Amino acid sequence: MKYDQAAVRDVLESVKKSDRTALSNAEAKRIADAYLIPTPRDGLASSAEEAVRLANDIGYPVVMKIESSGILHKTDAGGVLTGVLDAASVHAGYGRICENARSFDASAVIGGVQVQQQIPIAQEVIVGATTDPAFGKLVAFGLGGVLVEILQDVTFRLAPTSLEQATGMLDDIAGSAILNGVRGSPAVDRAALASLIENVAALVSDFPEISEMDLNPVFANAEGATAVDVRILCDFEPAEPRYRPSHDDILSAMKRIMQPDAVAVIGASAVDGKIGNSVMRNLIDGGYAGELYPIHPKADVILDHPCYKSVTDVPGGIDIAIFCIPAPFVAGVIAECGQKEIAGAILIPSGFAEVGEHALQDEIVNVARKNNVRLMGPNIYGFYYTHKNLCATFCTPYDEKGKVALSSQSGGVGMAIIGFSRSAKMGVSAIVGLGNKADIDEDDLLTFFEQDPNTEVIAMHVEDLKDGRAFAEVAERVSKKKPIVMLKAGRTGSGARAAKSHTGALAGDDRVYDAVLRQCGVIRAKSLNDMLEFARGLQVLPTPKGENVVILTGAGGSGVLLADACVDNNLSLMVMPEDLDASFKAFIPPFGASGNPVDITGGEPPSTYRSTIDLALNDDRVHALILGYWHTIITPPMVFATLLGEAVEQARAKGIDKPVVVSLVGDVEIEQACEYLMDRNILSYPYTAEKPVAVLGAKYRWARAAGLL
Amino acid sequence: MKYDQAAVRDVLESVKKSDRTALSNAEAKRIADAYLIPTPRDGLASSAEEAVRLANDIGYPVVMKIESSGILHKTDAGGVLTGVLDAASVHAGYGRICENARSFDASAVIGGVQVQQQIPIAQEVIVGATTDPAFGKLVAFGLGGVLVEILQDVTFRLAPTSLEQATGMLDDIAGSAILNGVRGSPAVDRAALASLIENVAALVSDFPEISEMDLNPVFANAEGATAVDVRILCDFEPAEPRYRPSHDDILSAMKRIMQPDAVAVIGASAVDGKIGNSVMRNLIDGGYAGELYPIHPKADVILDHPCYKSVTDVPGGIDIAIFCIPAPFVAGVIAECGQKEIAGAILIPSGFAEVGEHALQDEIVNVARKNNVRLMGPNIYGFYYTHKNLCATFCTPYDEKGKVALSSQSGGVGMAIIGFSRSAKMGVSAIVGLGNKADIDEDDLLTFFEQDPNTEVIAMHVEDLKDGRAFAEVAERVSKKKPIVMLKAGRTGSGARAAKSHTGALAGDDRVYDAVLRQCGVIRAKSLNDMLEFARGLQVLPTPKGENVVILTGAGGSGVLLADACVDNNLSLMVMPEDLDASFKAFIPPFGASGNPVDITGGEPPSTYRSTIDLALNDDRVHALILGYWHTIITPPMVFATLLGEAVEQARAKGIDKPVVVSLVGDVEIEQACEYLMDRNILSYPYTAEKPVAVLGAKYRWARAAGLL
Repeated sequence: MKYDQAAVRDVLESVKKSDRTALSNAEAKRIADAYLIPTPRDGLASSAEEAVRLANDIGYPVVMKIESSGILHKTDAGGVLTGVLDAASVHAGYGRICENARSFDASAVIGGVQVQQQIPIAQEVIVGATTDPAFGKLVAFGLGGVLVEILQDVTFRLAPTSLEQATGMLDDIAGSAILNGVRGSPAVDRAALASLIENVAALVSDFPEISEMDLNPVFANAEGATAVDVRILCDFEPAEPRYRPSHDDILSAMKRIMQPDAVAVIGASAVDGKIGNSVMRNLIDGGYAGELYPIHPKADVILDHPCYKSVTDVPGGIDIAIFCIPAPFVAGVIAECGQKEIAGAILIPSGFAEVGEHALQDEIVNVARKNNVRLMGPNIYGFYYTHKNLCATFCTPYDEKGKVALSSQSGGVGMAIIGFSRSAKMGVSAIVGLGNKADIDEDDLLTFFEQDPNTEVIAMHVEDLKDGRAFAEVAERVSKKKPIVMLKAGRTGSGARAAKSHTGALAGDDRVYDAVLRQCGVIRAKSLNDMLEFARGLQVLPTPKGENVVILTGAGGSGVLLADACVDNNLSLMVMPEDLDASFKAFIPPFGASGNPVDITGGEPPSTYRSTIDLALNDDRVHALILGYWHTIITPPMVFATLLGEAVEQARAKGIDKPVVVSLVGDVEIEQACEYLMDRNILSYPYTAEKPVAVLGAKYRWARAAGLL
Repeated sequence: MKYDQAAVRDVLESVKKSDRTALSNAEAKRIADAYLIPTPRDGLASSAEEAVRLANDIGYPVVMKIESSGILHKTDAGGVLTGVLDAASVHAGYGRICENARSFDASAVIGGVQVQQQIPIAQEVIVGATTDPAFGKLVAFGLGGVLVEILQDVTFRLAPTSLEQATGMLDDIAGSAILNGVRGSPAVDRAALASLIENVAALVSDFPEISEMDLNPVFANAEGATAVDVRILCDFEPAEPRYRPSHDDILSAMKRIMQPDAVAVIGASAVDGKIGNSVMRNLIDGGYAGELYPIHPKADVILDHPCYKSVTDVPGGIDIAIFCIPAPFVAGVIAECGQKEIAGAILIPSGFAEVGEHALQDEIVNVARKNNVRLMGPNIYGFYYTHKNLCATFCTPYDEKGKVALSSQSGGVGMAIIGFSRSAKMGVSAIVGLGNKADIDEDDLLTFFEQDPNTEVIAMHVEDLKDGRAFAEVAERVSKKKPIVMLKAGRTGSGARAAKSHTGALAGDDRVYDAVLRQCGVIRAKSLNDMLEFARGLQVLPTPKGENVVILTGAGGSGVLLADACVDNNLSLMVMPEDLDASFKAFIPPFGASGNPVDITGGEPPSTYRSTIDLALNDDRVHALILGYWHTIITPPMVFATLLGEAVEQARAKGIDKPVVVSLVGDVEIEQACEYLMDRNILSYPYTAEKPVAVLGAKYRWARAAGLL
């Protein structure tokens, strides 16, 4: 055991007993010692004379700080003296600090003055920890002083963190170069800093009652990292963790739910315009081949299917029940579903938490849990699983089968997904509405999609993660196998939350989401359209085998825009090897530009496009190809599309499959060329240089995070 | 005269005489004094004893700095001591500094040690000036220390700057809040800082031979701003300014060029596939109604038009000549154009500077200037002016008349403009290729479009401005009347240029472009597609009368995304007045959300959309409306489109014309609804929440910069 847990437990128990939540300096220091968090040598003096004795022991210069649990920001209270050089100054300083503190807050109880070794500053940084309602324990790192206060240059990780993750945090802030030393100051000891972060993360993970921590400042220099001030806040009544079944239970239920062999429609209807009618029709028109049981208290037959009064009357087994009945009746039927051992209730009805009916929602959750029924929704459009021809929704049938699974928290975004997918002829495996997420949420879906052979890419629209911690755990694993794209809405919403610590205040929702999503390899889309385009593009593009990107263009102007986009998307333009450069040069006019971008110039015939494309495709050192086509009479759009289609097809036949993305600029005929290429799984966009590069960039982000590059 | 120009002239003359480009500290200080740039009290000591005498006069603490023109970065050489507290320390310090300097660079000539008043720091900032190849004199401001060095948090303005512009710079940096004081430190004297910037800008404008200046650091505190270190570099052989005709000459030539009554085609051809044939055909097929003269050495008639051997043979006057002949023949024909008093030569041919033939390009420029002929190109696709049915290009005819003028430096981007415009049914007034910009460039075009009644919005693709200073002057004036959108390509290109000063090194191309474009009210598009969408949308949207934006949505999820987009685009969601809130509430279900976004919820009939839209349109306090439509069976897409079209039309008939933008999410039918709305000048986009808000944001950016808000 690296850490002295018993010591921490002792301190926390005494804090709890004395009914406090804020720890004293001395208590915080004992905890820091126990978790190998370096702090300066110090002592607490209750008189000027004692302060002088302590300072003589510690060695000059010293820092003096007021000790008072009532004063949180000591500097503001005039309670801090730095660079105190000798015994006389220590003696005088003692009185001054106490006086300042009393005039700042007459009611504050003063426990003395802390005398502390003054650490030589190389760089001031801040390390902290906070408890996030969705993600639980987080550790923070930022540059100290104005950088963190004004520019909020700070990053987060889920705690506990590995030493490797902690080291990554050092590079994750905008000002990270400062740690390498600026203008003569030496680089800081990165290993010491990372290990300090790791220790803080371990501490808050081991002791969940520690709700917030600020190590501010931490002085980092070439010799180590020392937490000059340590503040610890406790919450001895932490929120109950969200209920979560085991992985195996989730998976076996989700398999039955997403790929059901028998479906009941609760509230099925023969009447046009009713939701229970739309759902029945979509199941039938969509071609669902499993058992279909309409449930209705009175009807005998609905749309040629025999009707039952209750799921319990159905002779065979049922996997899911799709609810098309008003909210107040839902709970009762869920109980019947439980008796029938139905795996999932698909709750289309609204009228729950989204309209303030929290009690009603709590009720159905309790009934469902008691009866071992998983809930999707409520307040959703339903879901699709195309490979079972399952359209469990009141929307419209969807039959373009493919490998993209999408989910949305909002119905509005769900409709955009359906419309875009249809319009862009995007093949999907599943489209799922999650709505209020009373039960099933993104981590349940991920657990299913992880092993679903029909799904290769997962795209999710999320407003809030009900259990961010669980999501992160599953996403970190799944994203190594299949790209996960997320559109996180509400980015700019409520801003910083109420928080008592500095670190807590910095943990604005979006900054935390951003850091955690990156930590677990999720590709964040910054717009609805990006999410949809990434979803479509990521499964089309093969995984690149390396970082060397080549731009090949018929228009110098496009080349410039494409190169800009590469930088924006963190793509590396290959430094062209001499021999390859010479090979390109042989094909292009003398005034064309070799190097990278390769500018074949605009007046060239199809053969020049073809030769240079073949060259790039067949050279192992080129890992991805960005094409900038320019509409000319000499090589018209469809001629280009055809030759590119052939080139890629021939390469694929030889086992060469590298990402190829195309930007086409020209007159309206390029739209047809794009469609032709998209039909052949070559990602192509008209009138934009940026979109194809953004999708390629997303593929690279994923491949890097998954450790494939 | 506020400044002592004679003193500056004296110093600079002696520097020039002594064949130096770097000024000594003393020289720099004399110049600073002359231009009211505060510096600390100081003096130059050539012995330790003299240093002590000076320090006693100045008062302690003092700063000591090595004086040596060979040592640029004094700190690196160990040539600086700060906080020197007494005479003894000054005495010892003198020897130490000189020794350090000698061991740093044995060959450096040491002129003594500068003894300087130590200014109490509140905040360290940097002010500087540099000479940009395109924009000329620029002044820079940033936060000092790591903020400017690592985070490059710095901003620029064209010099000279007004006091108002200088004040604006203080707010323009990311860390501007630091100037207002952090954690107990008082706010700095903003007026003093702004006036210091203004003085630096005036100095470099008045004395162009000052090529670079660093005031680094400037200590700003509550009492003032003092430049602690002033470095000045000179260039006594500045580049010649680009030739530029007078405004009236530009305008009269550009009017004849853009709206010609008679056109000659040099190298007209009857042979299909020749450029001279395409140009003739496009002019004829495009419906050009002016005089058209094919020029060919041998032919009598081309495409039913009588042919001439030379422009000088044509009986009537000619406004422009379109060149379709090889590069080597161009210069000779330009001279003939001059004899014929032709206003402009449209140079389609390539084979000039773009392929390294700089001499050939210089030659045509000289011939043209001598003959008073303006040149468009060379190396262009030509240009369109639709209101004259003029298609002076080898591309294709274009006849969708409208109020957007577009230009592109690159032919590739020009083709994208043509294709997008046609596909999006965007009416244009002009599309212009500028190519190599040997002569006519963006400021000439702006001068024409400024007064062109057929042009309301100008969009430009630019790789580099040949004369950024001239552009900025014209753009600042024009942008007050008509929005100018610019896509600046090559953003991420070459990075920082070679520069001897700190400020020069910070002036990476893109940072300067960004600051200057904002300074002159140009709306920067960050992608090709944004440029095209802004061009289309800005002339459709009326100018808002205030900052109050209201979001009205049928889907809560869309509302969240639209609100995110508003923050991203710097739009202000109106704080809903109580009475208006109550009025909205009366129309929407009890579980809908009033406030802003107004969520009418998804299940509502057309009448709810209509009533709430009417409410927002007719309330004067609402200045712009963002609609989030969600596809439902109860209010299908075309029903929504029709009711919105009617509502807007009725409002317009009453004289109410506020910006309305629409995001439609749903199944593919929404695409038809978008088209219907676009046809009625209501900006609508499918499958995206971000695009309509981005266009609205661009309109607001323009209206604010033009002083209309």
